[in-house]
Amino acid sequence: MSEIIGYYSTKFGELWERSLYDLAAEAIFGVLKETKLESRKIDAIFYANMMGGVLENNLHATGKIAEIMGVNIPIFRVEAACASGGSAFHLATQYIAGNNKTVLVVGAEKQNDASPDQVTSALASAASGEEQEAGLTFPGLYGMMARYYLEKYKYTEESMAHIAVKNHYHGSLNDKAQFRRKITMDQVLKSPYVADPIKVLDSSPISDGAAALILSNDKSLCKNYRNRPHVLACEVATDTISLAGRARLDELKATVIASKKAYKEAGITAADIDVAEVHDCFTIAEILAMEDLGFWKKGRGGAESAQYVTQLGNGGRIIVNPSGGLKAAGHPVGATGIKQLGELYMQLSGQATSRQVKGAKYGLAHNVGGSGGTAVVTILGV
Amino acid sequence: MSEIIGYYSTKFGELWERSLYDLAAEAIFGVLKETKLESRKIDAIFYANMMGGVLENNLHATGKIAEIMGVNIPIFRVEAACASGGSAFHLATQYIAGNNKTVLVVGAEKQNDASPDQVTSALASAASGEEQEAGLTFPGLYGMMARYYLEKYKYTEESMAHIAVKNHYHGSLNDKAQFRRKITMDQVLKSPYVADPIKVLDSSPISDGAAALILSNDKSLCKNYRNRPHVLACEVATDTISLAGRARLDELKATVIASKKAYKEAGITAADIDVAEVHDCFTIAEILAMEDLGFWKKGRGGAESAQYVTQLGNGGRIIVNPSGGLKAAGHPVGATGIKQLGELYMQLSGQATSRQVKGAKYGLAHNVGGSGGTAVVTILGV
Repeated sequence: MSEIIGYYSTKFGELWERSLYDLAAEAIFGVLKETKLESRKIDAIFYANMMGGVLENNLHATGKIAEIMGVNIPIFRVEAACASGGSAFHLATQYIAGNNKTVLVVGAEKQNDASPDQVTSALASAASGEEQEAGLTFPGLYGMMARYYLEKYKYTEESMAHIAVKNHYHGSLNDKAQFRRKITMDQVLKSPYVADPIKVLDSSPISDGAAALILSNDKSLCKNYRNRPHVLACEVATDTISLAGRARLDELKATVIASKKAYKEAGITAADIDVAEVHDCFTIAEILAMEDLGFWKKGRGGAESAQYVTQLGNGGRIIVNPSGGLKAAGHPVGATGIKQLGELYMQLSGQATSRQVKGAKYGLAHNVGGSGGTAVVTILGV
Repeated sequence: MSEIIGYYSTKFGELWERSLYDLAAEAIFGVLKETKLESRKIDAIFYANMMGGVLENNLHATGKIAEIMGVNIPIFRVEAACASGGSAFHLATQYIAGNNKTVLVVGAEKQNDASPDQVTSALASAASGEEQEAGLTFPGLYGMMARYYLEKYKYTEESMAHIAVKNHYHGSLNDKAQFRRKITMDQVLKSPYVADPIKVLDSSPISDGAAALILSNDKSLCKNYRNRPHVLACEVATDTISLAGRARLDELKATVIASKKAYKEAGITAADIDVAEVHDCFTIAEILAMEDLGFWKKGRGGAESAQYVTQLGNGGRIIVNPSGGLKAAGHPVGATGIKQLGELYMQLSGQATSRQVKGAKYGLAHNVGGSGGTAVVTILGV
């Protein structure tokens, strides 16, 4: 069974002095140092990045990473919009299944060198061409889902705001997070609309950053590391890229399918999960995710969020987005799925310091591409 | 052992009336029809595409393909510049290794809707940022390699021109090829320089097209198909993305490493190969490839090419690029690596009609990213 034996993340944020490959290199050499592994111990690399081509005209990152590391090993770039990290991790688990291999999985993104218009357009590349032509941006797509959900289940915008308040509180405990300040309900509710009913403080930020982990199936290597989380399941599902093609707007079908397969593969249920990192690109996305992953009954999210039961220190049965999530920790797109797994690694190996979920045995990571065209659900256990 | 059970390719060329996803859909449904398989028999899809993001702002193709096919299965987009197809195939072989699974591997590219300037810039995205800033395009990079090779081994531009003449002859036999006209030495030598010593007729064209194959490890399924080539080896190697970082300019180290590993894995030598599809993005690239793959001694390529020993009907021990290669069949980037494997499938299963290599038992495909930052070498056998 594959095990995660080490993790490193750069700071997430507006990192004006760093390039995309500066960040990737910091994460790669950071995790090698963390694990005390030489480059020659790595059998292959999986690299997750969404926008290098669109924003910087840099594709073919495989050769660039070979150059940075001075290696000639197999390197693969995987792209599935905001689910690039989870997808790369999935392929890495498949790559070493049944083999005595050790791979490095790294995700990186550099967004702040581009103008807001360019980044908005680049993010919209995860939507269908038709939706782009209709003028829809990602806040617009999630805005439609949010409006539908709030109307259908009779909630107000406050239901979403609670998620932002919780995740900023968690972010305040994470020294790699983009935002380390707590925010209030009043601040969220008074922040400007981006795409009604979604406001600035319902939205994850534009971020630069990179994260890397080492995944191994080599027992003789793994035994040198303590408290290694095992990959119990990693499942990918897809759905129509366009919202217009979906049967319902209050659920991400890809999340439902991937999570059902993952629970079955892992032999556990949602009730067994102690800590989860879910894809809160917007606050409504965390509410939908909690329901689609089976933690809350469909339509319950608005009521549950108001209770802060998934916040550290409140005695709830599951802690959600202790890293601060995409909302507060930041969302350097290609790095996000890796950071989620890294956060679970920190939690399950007992290294999460002030945001430690005590006694966490099972963790779940949920990474979504676009408005739900791709979902990856991974379950780790110790 | 994985087997290829079916293949379909669109016409390659300037396909003004078709979009990127029109082409991908034709290839996907084409190979499903060819193999008489329903979509639900496919366990996962690997999709190779280089420029969808850069030229059309379309990323997240995983969701788009799910929408086209009406499926929710795992779908992965793999990008390694011009080696995207080979890399996707490699990951597909890893994905089904040891499993009873069937996957569809599809590559597609749409270049002709963009202006020549845009395409030249998009292709340059496979080079390092520094090389791009220095004004180097891909003909420029291969032009430097060509000049160095011709000077070092005392050849003239005629050595390269023979490759173009041969591959256009092969292209004349391939009804899916972009160019089906034979050309003469005189035409090649009199064509305008693109990047001295590389001329227009030394260069593969800007192409639209898609190709798809079905790869399976499911014995109960495979037995329904005849003459299925087995994947004996599929190896990926990388090298510095920039030419400046290389120890030598007359060899692609990634090709050397990947081919040595592939021969070892397959348990055969270069001398056993009957038919090869090698990455002739420029004529010099085929000469270098033939040497780096061990078919010709380093420095012999210029002399060998003049003998046309790798052309159909000349009694040589190996036929190279019977499809017409990238040069004449066309180079729709993401599709190229899949087309190479598809051509081997046609050859090894005896379906290559007028360009059939008689009695072919072993085939080799060689797919390169950029100026050699990535190389994939696959060996098939029947």
